[in-house]
Amino acid sequence: MTASAASDAPFLAAARGLPAAHTPVWFMRQAGRSLPEYRAVRGEGSILDAIKQPERAADITMQPVRRYGVDAAVLYSDIVVPPHAVGFGVDVAPGTGPVAAQPLRTIADLARLRPLEPDDVSYVADTVDLLVGELPPEVPLLSFAGAPFTVASYLIEGGPSRTYRHTKAMMYSEELLWHRVMERLAESAITFIDVQLRHGARAFQLFDSWAGSLSVADYDRFVFPHSERVFAELADKHPDVVGIHFGIGCDHLLERMYAAGPGVIGLDWRTPIRAARSRLGADTVVQGNLDPSLVLAGQAPAVTGARRVLADNDGHPGHIFNLGHGVDKDSDPAVLQAVVDLVHEETRS
Amino acid sequence: MTASAASDAPFLAAARGLPAAHTPVWFMRQAGRSLPEYRAVRGEGSILDAIKQPERAADITMQPVRRYGVDAAVLYSDIVVPPHAVGFGVDVAPGTGPVAAQPLRTIADLARLRPLEPDDVSYVADTVDLLVGELPPEVPLLSFAGAPFTVASYLIEGGPSRTYRHTKAMMYSEELLWHRVMERLAESAITFIDVQLRHGARAFQLFDSWAGSLSVADYDRFVFPHSERVFAELADKHPDVVGIHFGIGCDHLLERMYAAGPGVIGLDWRTPIRAARSRLGADTVVQGNLDPSLVLAGQAPAVTGARRVLADNDGHPGHIFNLGHGVDKDSDPAVLQAVVDLVHEETRS
Repeated sequence: MTASAASDAPFLAAARGLPAAHTPVWFMRQAGRSLPEYRAVRGEGSILDAIKQPERAADITMQPVRRYGVDAAVLYSDIVVPPHAVGFGVDVAPGTGPVAAQPLRTIADLARLRPLEPDDVSYVADTVDLLVGELPPEVPLLSFAGAPFTVASYLIEGGPSRTYRHTKAMMYSEELLWHRVMERLAESAITFIDVQLRHGARAFQLFDSWAGSLSVADYDRFVFPHSERVFAELADKHPDVVGIHFGIGCDHLLERMYAAGPGVIGLDWRTPIRAARSRLGADTVVQGNLDPSLVLAGQAPAVTGARRVLADNDGHPGHIFNLGHGVDKDSDPAVLQAVVDLVHEETRS
Repeated sequence: MTASAASDAPFLAAARGLPAAHTPVWFMRQAGRSLPEYRAVRGEGSILDAIKQPERAADITMQPVRRYGVDAAVLYSDIVVPPHAVGFGVDVAPGTGPVAAQPLRTIADLARLRPLEPDDVSYVADTVDLLVGELPPEVPLLSFAGAPFTVASYLIEGGPSRTYRHTKAMMYSEELLWHRVMERLAESAITFIDVQLRHGARAFQLFDSWAGSLSVADYDRFVFPHSERVFAELADKHPDVVGIHFGIGCDHLLERMYAAGPGVIGLDWRTPIRAARSRLGADTVVQGNLDPSLVLAGQAPAVTGARRVLADNDGHPGHIFNLGHGVDKDSDPAVLQAVVDLVHEETRS
């Protein structure tokens, strides 16, 4: 990709706060169960096995790009790929999410979470290679990783949790172990994203989906230094690459998550774009934030909601349109298409 | 109860921002499945049937008062008692929560939600009568009701929801019907609480547990006027009674929920007490906000967390100690006892 082609990509322009041909749109979890063409090729078995097949993973990554005309491709992957790749013992149970039969509770368990090496995820590099050859220059490929806290919560709880009781028990009762786990997961996220950027991904997102379960004080003490390190080391290695930081229900952590160093802050629908720029600075580049429940609710509510998001952004060039959470599997692709078309039409320069 | 006995109740003093013998403590959902003595008397069947038996309901309400020495009793009840009492067709499924076989989706469904009359909940009045005769004067009885939005979400979805898709669909696509549903539920909450206050309950809490799923703009347009009406009409009827307003993950709605008119704002663990007083006013009376996951995590994390809550409050008289959410059924009563004792000992004047 030439420098000029890259700068013509609406996603890359908006990510730097620069004017673009239109406001770029992509959807978290755009490649997945809401698409009939995904269900047609996905087959049975763990998503972690599907991710290991570069041609299939590249095809799935391309599906929403072909269907919707979105402005970014996001690699078909999962936040537990790195711990899975080093043999920790974690899988993704259909309908449940990440599960670990032997959760991480003691220093002995940490031995199963050895440092990630690039060769552990060579299949991911292969998928990126395929995609970089296929994607048009105006549609960059995004890499993503789970932030250390969110990945830790799955490994420590052994599965999805409402309470994060074991995670919080480790924070409060075994702080040294906690920080060792977080250091390991930060290194792993850095390696995982670095591999993809070296192979041609053009931006990345760090998903701290469940950080919103923490108070600011706990976030600062137990999480912030590790997520900050991820952004800092990736900025050192790839100074021109923009990182996005996103979590659900993180309005109360907004200043801290932005201070961790991303170029773009991802917002869920609870934080108005206007409020984010008022708190973080008028030039803040934001991503979001249509309530995905409005997509489920139907085309009229979704389009009304999308118009409100655009009005909230008020023409600021630093806006990447997205949902405020991942696409729900029951979403109607026709509604998402209507949202993409609306955003492109309303913002065409 | 005489006026002087009432003013000696730490809960009632703190609720008005006045100094008390110690910081009062109670726990949302303190009467319930975490207590072995509850499981011993509860039996099978719906909680809605147990609530209809005044002697049993009064006994269950007293259990945590006897065990922990908490500073308030909270009536053993449920937020769907009012719609159940008018025959809407809603039950509480063990392990699931409120479920409605025929959800509220159209104007025709609204006919099943007729206005609540005091006689519909005469068993609740009988339970309150029993408790007022039994409770010591320094332990007031609290009444509670579900706020219109949270009750509406159960009736419209037909059960607990992650997405509130049908609820949000009604807001965005059938706004007139939405407001009629909310008006009916506001009236029902007013009647339900009024009955209990007239029979001797001394304060009330409005639970808008799931309001945090809304943006500020949606809260203001679709929810605020109805919750504000509940506080306003109850203040007219009972000018000396303090109301508490509480929701989970509502940090982004804090100003609006306080503006709805409660005397006390309930905080979950995501909102520091100091931050709440900085945003709402230095004299704001707050309730909260120990992370219930720390109670699950064990005695040391819970006690550490409780000390941090007290430090956050910094000796302000307007503090009612509570968890930042209901007691989890897997909580160890010994840990809750340690929290009660710590708060009483550390704050004794």
